[in-house]
Amino acid sequence: MSFKYSAILGFMGQLTDRFSVYHEPRSLEEKVALASKIEGLAGLEPVYPFDFEGMSYDGYRQLLARYNLQVSSVNVNIKAEAKFQRGALTSIDPGIRAEAVRYIQQGMDWAAELGASCVTVCPLSDGHDYPFEIDYRQAWRWLVDGIGEAAAYRPEVRLAVEYKQSEPRAKVIVPNAGIVLLLCEQVGLDNVGITIDTGHALYALEAPAQSITLAADAGRLYLIHINDNYRNWDWDLMPGLVNYWDWLETIFALQQAGYDGWLVSDVFPARTDPVETLSASYRAIRYAEQFLETFGPERLRSLIQQREVIRLFDELQRHMMGKTSAEPAA
Amino acid sequence: MSFKYSAILGFMGQLTDRFSVYHEPRSLEEKVALASKIEGLAGLEPVYPFDFEGMSYDGYRQLLARYNLQVSSVNVNIKAEAKFQRGALTSIDPGIRAEAVRYIQQGMDWAAELGASCVTVCPLSDGHDYPFEIDYRQAWRWLVDGIGEAAAYRPEVRLAVEYKQSEPRAKVIVPNAGIVLLLCEQVGLDNVGITIDTGHALYALEAPAQSITLAADAGRLYLIHINDNYRNWDWDLMPGLVNYWDWLETIFALQQAGYDGWLVSDVFPARTDPVETLSASYRAIRYAEQFLETFGPERLRSLIQQREVIRLFDELQRHMMGKTSAEPAA
Amino acid sequence: MSFKYSAILGFMGQLTDRFSVYHEPRSLEEKVALASKIEGLAGLEPVYPFDFEGMSYDGYRQLLARYNLQVSSVNVNIKAEAKFQRGALTSIDPGIRAEAVRYIQQGMDWAAELGASCVTVCPLSDGHDYPFEIDYRQAWRWLVDGIGEAAAYRPEVRLAVEYKQSEPRAKVIVPNAGIVLLLCEQVGLDNVGITIDTGHALYALEAPAQSITLAADAGRLYLIHINDNYRNWDWDLMPGLVNYWDWLETIFALQQAGYDGWLVSDVFPARTDPVETLSASYRAIRYAEQFLETFGPERLRSLIQQREVIRLFDELQRHMMGKTSAEPAA
Amino acid sequence: MSFKYSAILGFMGQLTDRFSVYHEPRSLEEKVALASKIEGLAGLEPVYPFDFEGMSYDGYRQLLARYNLQVSSVNVNIKAEAKFQRGALTSIDPGIRAEAVRYIQQGMDWAAELGASCVTVCPLSDGHDYPFEIDYRQAWRWLVDGIGEAAAYRPEVRLAVEYKQSEPRAKVIVPNAGIVLLLCEQVGLDNVGITIDTGHALYALEAPAQSITLAADAGRLYLIHINDNYRNWDWDLMPGLVNYWDWLETIFALQQAGYDGWLVSDVFPARTDPVETLSASYRAIRYAEQFLETFGPERLRSLIQQREVIRLFDELQRHMMGKTSAEPAA
Repeated sequence: MSFKYSAILGFMGQLTDRFSVYHEPRSLEEKVALASKIEGLAGLEPVYPFDFEGMSYDGYRQLLARYNLQVSSVNVNIKAEAKFQRGALTSIDPGIRAEAVRYIQQGMDWAAELGASCVTVCPLSDGHDYPFEIDYRQAWRWLVDGIGEAAAYRPEVRLAVEYKQSEPRAKVIVPNAGIVLLLCEQVGLDNVGITIDTGHALYALEAPAQSITLAADAGRLYLIHINDNYRNWDWDLMPGLVNYWDWLETIFALQQAGYDGWLVSDVFPARTDPVETLSASYRAIRYAEQFLETFGPERLRSLIQQREVIRLFDELQRHMMGKTSAEPAA
Repeated sequence: MSFKYSAILGFMGQLTDRFSVYHEPRSLEEKVALASKIEGLAGLEPVYPFDFEGMSYDGYRQLLARYNLQVSSVNVNIKAEAKFQRGALTSIDPGIRAEAVRYIQQGMDWAAELGASCVTVCPLSDGHDYPFEIDYRQAWRWLVDGIGEAAAYRPEVRLAVEYKQSEPRAKVIVPNAGIVLLLCEQVGLDNVGITIDTGHALYALEAPAQSITLAADAGRLYLIHINDNYRNWDWDLMPGLVNYWDWLETIFALQQAGYDGWLVSDVFPARTDPVETLSASYRAIRYAEQFLETFGPERLRSLIQQREVIRLFDELQRHMMGKTSAEPAA
Repeated sequence: MSFKYSAILGFMGQLTDRFSVYHEPRSLEEKVALASKIEGLAGLEPVYPFDFEGMSYDGYRQLLARYNLQVSSVNVNIKAEAKFQRGALTSIDPGIRAEAVRYIQQGMDWAAELGASCVTVCPLSDGHDYPFEIDYRQAWRWLVDGIGEAAAYRPEVRLAVEYKQSEPRAKVIVPNAGIVLLLCEQVGLDNVGITIDTGHALYALEAPAQSITLAADAGRLYLIHINDNYRNWDWDLMPGLVNYWDWLETIFALQQAGYDGWLVSDVFPARTDPVETLSASYRAIRYAEQFLETFGPERLRSLIQQREVIRLFDELQRHMMGKTSAEPAA
Repeated sequence: MSFKYSAILGFMGQLTDRFSVYHEPRSLEEKVALASKIEGLAGLEPVYPFDFEGMSYDGYRQLLARYNLQVSSVNVNIKAEAKFQRGALTSIDPGIRAEAVRYIQQGMDWAAELGASCVTVCPLSDGHDYPFEIDYRQAWRWLVDGIGEAAAYRPEVRLAVEYKQSEPRAKVIVPNAGIVLLLCEQVGLDNVGITIDTGHALYALEAPAQSITLAADAGRLYLIHINDNYRNWDWDLMPGLVNYWDWLETIFALQQAGYDGWLVSDVFPARTDPVETLSASYRAIRYAEQFLETFGPERLRSLIQQREVIRLFDELQRHMMGKTSAEPAA
C-alpha cells in the first residue's frame, strides 16, 4: 500500500455528543498505547493543545518511539475552548484572533519538531448560526489575514485548512473545497493548502474524488481524512460502508493524483469499539486497493475517459462476482 | 430469480425536463417494441391515460401478446394534464377531485382487464409550494375520501399509493412511507396499499429496506419501483450505482419479506440509451441476487440479528474479493 | 396568549456537543432558579431520571412552588446512559428493553404526581448507523410492544412519542410524523400520541403546520417543542429566526387546531446566554401571535382556502409595512 | 430603488418539467409584450440562441424600443440542445467543446450590440450523474480553457459564470460560489466573473448574502438572479416567500456592496400566472427595500458588527409590529 494510515488521537479517549458520554477518559499515553493496537496504524494525529499538555519535544519523540508510531499531522483545535466558541480567527475580539493564530503557530512548531507532514486546522467556530449574525466581509478578511499570518511564521511547515459545512456552527466560514482553494489563492503563500475529509466532501454534496483531483492539480492537497456518511451530516462512519462506489473512486483518485501521504481516520467510534472500528477502517482501505489492483487501474481509467458508465459498472459488478469481463452476464 | 422485471412504459418514449427534450417521440406500439428488447423484461407499467388512448381491452391484450409481455401494474397519472396541475384529489374544485377519482377507477378497470397486480398512483400535484398556500386539514380529508372512493369501486383490484417528497410540487401531500401507511389505516379498506420507489425512500431519508419491511409487515406492500439517487432528489439513476449497500439490503429485505411481485424500473434514461439503461438495471438485480445467494442469506441474517456490523462488513468485503471468511485479512 | 410557555430544564445547565462544553454545571435548584428568570415562563420540562435524582414527590412540588412554576411535561431520556446507547426499546438485550419501559413508567408516575400534561419520549438511540445493522422487523415490533406496555401502565397519563430523523443515530426508528402516527395506530391505545418538535418537522422536510394539523385531527397532538433550523439538522435555534413564515404558519395552525397546551422551548443556548435566549424565544411567540391577531385570522383563513398565495403574501408583507390592504403598492 | 429589475425571457413562454407542460407557446414578440406588463420591469434576459433566432441587431433594438425595455444580460444556453446534453464545455468531443465556446462568443456579440451588462452562462450539462463517469481533471481543464477562450474573444464584454449544485446533471461541475471564484482565478482574465442566483446559493447551503459579499469583494460580482426555495432544490419560487430573513439580508448585502446592477427574476411560474408572479417578485424587492430603509441601514449594520443577534431580531420583529425599539415588549 502506498498510503500511510493514521488516526486522530482524540478518538482513543472519552467522546461526547449533545446527549451522551462514550468510553472512559484516558491519559495521553493510554491513548497512544490503545492506538498502537489498531491494525495497520503507522501514525497519529494528536490534537493541539490537548494532546501536548505538559510534554516536551523530546518526551513526545520518546513516547512515539515507544509505540513505534509517527506523527502524521498536528490537528490544531481553535474551536473547543470557551474563548473560541463564538469565533476564533474571526472573533470580533482582536485578542482572540491573535490567540488563534498563536495556536496554529505553536502547532507548527510541534509539527516541525515531530516531523509531521503538516498542521491541519478546521475553523469550526468561525461562521454563524443566524441570518444577520456576522459581517461577512470583515469575517472573511480576518480569516485571510489570520491564515496568512500563521503560515508566514514558518514557511517550511505546511498549513492545511479543513473545510466543513457546519458543526457546531450552523454555517462554517469554509464550507467546501472551492472556498478553501479560493482562500489559498487569496492568502497567496506556498505553504497553505487543504485537508480533504472525505465525509466533509460528501456532506458538502461534492464527489470526494473530484475535490481531491481539483486540489491535487492546484498543488494544494496536503492531507486526507477518511470516513463516510449519508451526505447530510458529518456522521464519521467507517469509510465505504455507506457510499461504496464513492469510496472506491476516492482511493482511485488519490492513486491517480500520485498522493502518497497519510490517510487519517476521522471515524467517531461512539457505539463501537475504538480499536475494532479503526482496524476495520484500515481494512476498508486495503479492500479498496485490492479491488482496484485486481480490476486494473488502466482498464478503469480507460473506461472513465470513454465515459462508458454502463459498461464500466457492469464490469465492476462482474468483477465483484469473480467473473472476467469476457463471460456473458448471468 | 423470484422477482419479475417490468418498466414504466413512458421511459421508452420522448422525455423532457425543465431544460431539455430527450429522444424521439414514439407511438404506443413503438414503445412496446423497444421495451421488448430490454434484457430480462417480463412486464410493462403503462401510464393511464396516455398509454391507453384509442385502445380496446382486446387490442391491448393482443399488443402485449405480440411482444410476449404482461402488464405488471397500471400507473394512473393524475398530475400531468393542465386540469390537475394545481391539485387533483385535493383540488379546491370538486369537479377536478371527481375527475381524479374517475381516472383511478378507469385505471382499475384496465388493470382488471389486463391482469395487472395493481394500479399505482403518485399524487404529485397534490401538495403545496409555499407556506400558507393550502388548508392542510381540508386537503388531507379530500385525499382520504378520494382514495377511499376510488378503492371502493372495485375491491378486487389493489390500489397502491406511491409517496415522494416533492416534484413538481415543492411539498407533496404524501412525502414518506409513514404517511402512506397512515393513510391506508385512515381509509380502512383492504385493497389500499403502498408502492415503494426505492429512490423515493432514499430521498425521504429512509432506508429502503426498512420501509419495505414495515409495509410488508402491515400487509400493504403492493409494488416496488427501482432506481437510485444521492438522497437529495429523485434522480432516477440505475439501481445500486450510487448506494450499493442499500441496494443489496433492499433486495435482501424483499426476499426476507417474501415479496415475489414486480420490480418496476423507474430509471430515467435521459442521457443514456433507454434499452441499455434498463437492461443494466435488470442486471443490477441479478448481480445483487447472486451476491446474496453466494454469500448466504442465513449467514447474513444471523450477522444482522447479532448486530455485528463490523464483522458483517468485513465478510461482505471479503466476499467481494473472492475470499472465504476463514482467510485472514490481507 | 392561549399557549403556556415552558422550557426543557436541561438547557439551564451545562451543555456539550461533540467538540465543546458550554456553561457551568448547575444543581437542580440552580437550574430551576435560573429558569424562573426567563420571560413568560410558566412551566418546566424536567428530564427523567437526571432532573429527579434524590427528589421526593413532595420535595419536587415544593421546589416548583418556590419558583411559581409548573411541570408542563416530563421528558423521559432513554438514550443518554451507556446501557441505552446501542438501543433502548429496541435493544437486542431484553433486560435493556424492560429497563427502557420502566423508565417511561417511572416518568409517568412523576407526571401524574406533578400534574404534568404528559410524558414525552424521543427514542434517539433506537435506530441504526449502517446498512445491514439491524433487523428492521424485529426492531419495529419491539418498539410497538414497548410503547404499548409502557402506556398500558397508567391509562390516565398521556405518553407522547417525539420523532426525529437522526442524532445521535444516523437513522432513528421514528424519523417523521407519519411514522409516529402509524405507531399510535398499531399500538392502539388511547393515551399514546405525539410530540411535534417544530425543528424536527423542518428537518424531516415537513411543513410543521401540516404535521400539527394532521396530528390534531387524529386526536394525537399532545405536546409541542419549539425551535428553528435550516431544514438539514436539528440546530435548535430560536423559533422564527430562520424560517419566519413557517413559524407564523405554525402558530396559526396551533390556533386553528384549538391547541391550548404547552409550547416547550427546545432551543440549545450554547453560544448565547440561556436566559436571554429563552426569553427571546418567548417573545417570538408573542410577536407571531400579535402579527396574526392584527392581520386577522379569518382574513388569513379565507385567503388560504381560496389558495390565493400571491395576494396573501402581498397582504402579509404590506401588513409588515404597516399598510392596510387597500393602499396601492409603493 | 437602486436596483434595476429584469426577468429571464423564457419564463414568459411555454414551460415544461419532467411531468407536465405549462402555458401556451409564445413567439418572441409575444413574450416581450407579455413581459412588458410586469410591474417594475426595466429589462429582459433573453436566452441565446432561442430568443435570438431570425433576428438582426437592429431588429432586436427596435423590438426592445417598442416595449421600452433594455437587455439586462444575455443568457447563453449551452445545455438544452441534444448536442450539449452529455457535456458542452467539457464534452469529450472537441467539436462540441468548440461549439459551446462559439455560443458564448456569439452571446457576447449580442450583449455588446444590445448594451447588456454581461453574458451569463450556467453550464448545467457539464458534470456527472454517476461515480466513475468522468475524468475530473480533464473536465476541469477543459472548463478553464473553454471559459478562458470565450472570455478572451471580447475583453470589453463581461462573462459571468452561474453556479448550481445540480439539474439536470446530478452533479454540476460548478456547484457553488467558491468553485466559480476559484475558476475566475485560474482563468485569470479581468472580464470573467460570477452570476449569483440567490436560490442556487441557498441550495448550495450558502447564505446568499455571504456569497454576494465574497464575490463583490473579489471584484467579480456581475449579475444577480432572484428566487427562493427550501434549500434542497432549485424550486425557483418567488423571492422571500420561504426564507424571509435571508431575502432581507440579501438585499442588504447588495446595498452594502454597492451593487447597482440588475436583479433578474429566475422565478418559474408553472402553477401561477407569469405576469402576476413576476410582478409579485418585483414587489418583494420593494418591500424588502422599504423594510430596510425604515429600519435604518446604519442601525442594522451596527447591530451586526456587534454580533448582537438576539437584540437585532427583537428589533426586527418589533419593527414589523410598527413599534419603536424604545417600547417594552408586549
